[in-house]
Amino acid sequence: MAKQNIYDNEVFFSEYRKLRKREVNANNLFELPTLFSLLPDLTGKRILDLGCGNGERCTDYLKRGAARVTGIDISEKMLAAAQIENSDPDITYLKMPMEDIGSIDDTFDVVLSSLALHYVEDFSGVVKNVYRLLCPGGIFLFSQEHPFTTCYSGTADRWTRDENGKKLYANIADYCVERRNDSKWFVEGVQRYHRTFSTIVNTLADTGFRILKMAEPCPTEEILHKYPEYCDLYHKPDFLFVKAVK
Amino acid sequence: MAKQNIYDNEVFFSEYRKLRKREVNANNLFELPTLFSLLPDLTGKRILDLGCGNGERCTDYLKRGAARVTGIDISEKMLAAAQIENSDPDITYLKMPMEDIGSIDDTFDVVLSSLALHYVEDFSGVVKNVYRLLCPGGIFLFSQEHPFTTCYSGTADRWTRDENGKKLYANIADYCVERRNDSKWFVEGVQRYHRTFSTIVNTLADTGFRILKMAEPCPTEEILHKYPEYCDLYHKPDFLFVKAVK
Repeated sequence: MAKQNIYDNEVFFSEYRKLRKREVNANNLFELPTLFSLLPDLTGKRILDLGCGNGERCTDYLKRGAARVTGIDISEKMLAAAQIENSDPDITYLKMPMEDIGSIDDTFDVVLSSLALHYVEDFSGVVKNVYRLLCPGGIFLFSQEHPFTTCYSGTADRWTRDENGKKLYANIADYCVERRNDSKWFVEGVQRYHRTFSTIVNTLADTGFRILKMAEPCPTEEILHKYPEYCDLYHKPDFLFVKAVK
Repeated sequence: MAKQNIYDNEVFFSEYRKLRKREVNANNLFELPTLFSLLPDLTGKRILDLGCGNGERCTDYLKRGAARVTGIDISEKMLAAAQIENSDPDITYLKMPMEDIGSIDDTFDVVLSSLALHYVEDFSGVVKNVYRLLCPGGIFLFSQEHPFTTCYSGTADRWTRDENGKKLYANIADYCVERRNDSKWFVEGVQRYHRTFSTIVNTLADTGFRILKMAEPCPTEEILHKYPEYCDLYHKPDFLFVKAVK
């Protein structure tokens, strides 16, 4: 199956880095606080971070008491940034697509993944390997693009607007048709895999995971007051989180 | 909290009965086959059916080997129909809103509910009582209107169409805003409670249930060939099923 490495595209890499360095972005406002709020106690834990990118989260996990963190990523550029920006004797970076973690000869207490699994075609294969790599009682917590977002094809109108341009409705098409959607995000041809809620839940349950928590983060009133442009998240959340236990 | 009894409305009751008697309807094509496919082995089991209506399913469960079935419903008219159409020494009908099942002094192996829970405001209260009424290892299987449907308010345009009237997109608005939506279905003021996927999953998980399966039924190619008008279910499924174990 295809293993996408869009982060090694020059343009994508540089634009993505700029986006993530902006102080106000959906990741900082919604994804990160939700990720942190769902983390189990990391004290003394062995962590695996799938799609670690520049290793920012790996450092966060160490700060929260993790004993050691293994970060894997398919992108050489992202890992080069990680070695400079988030190097630590207790962090090991491995260049590896998520689909290949079956080759890791280790055991972990917690497997984490932030906004990477929607790039993976073989979700079920990754989930099975995560299950195998976790110790009994181990936690798998991941975020991904929300199914309302992954189901957009590259050409679809995302919103129905009124005459003033105000977003009235999120346009959902072919939610039930699981597929790869290629769309433009900085560059053409970014591949996202659309899966329904049922498929995500059933893949975890069938593998043996017990689902503990699901989250679809929305702006708080405080954030909405400061950044009213994020009100459209009430129509359509950007992110989906699932926390499960082996 | 409000307990809705729309099925005792004269007009609603008679129109609803007509709809369900039509041979081709979404219930027969999609809801029922999915419900049956997700049923555990009922042989010798004690069943509770929440929102049993005219008792058709209670008879089905007996035919599938159940030892006894208790059907509860808030509607006197539906239960009167049940006594005539689906009477059996092994079926007990109780006139009771779902919110009051805490008063039942009994234990069940399987609790089932077909298309009723979206009428209930206190979902969490019902789930807690179901958990208490189930024996260890007992199964809770329910269907409800899909969250893409419950999130429609009475006044919203459900679809964006092209110039020929073809449905292009399901219009999703305020998915993240959990609320009661009053809309017209045969009569004005039918109340549905909108809950997100996260709330449904978390309510079950927090109560102690382990989620085994989720389903969002879609037409098979065979059904689509016969009834092409159901192609819009690919955009937006009508029903959501969840199967969980205590």
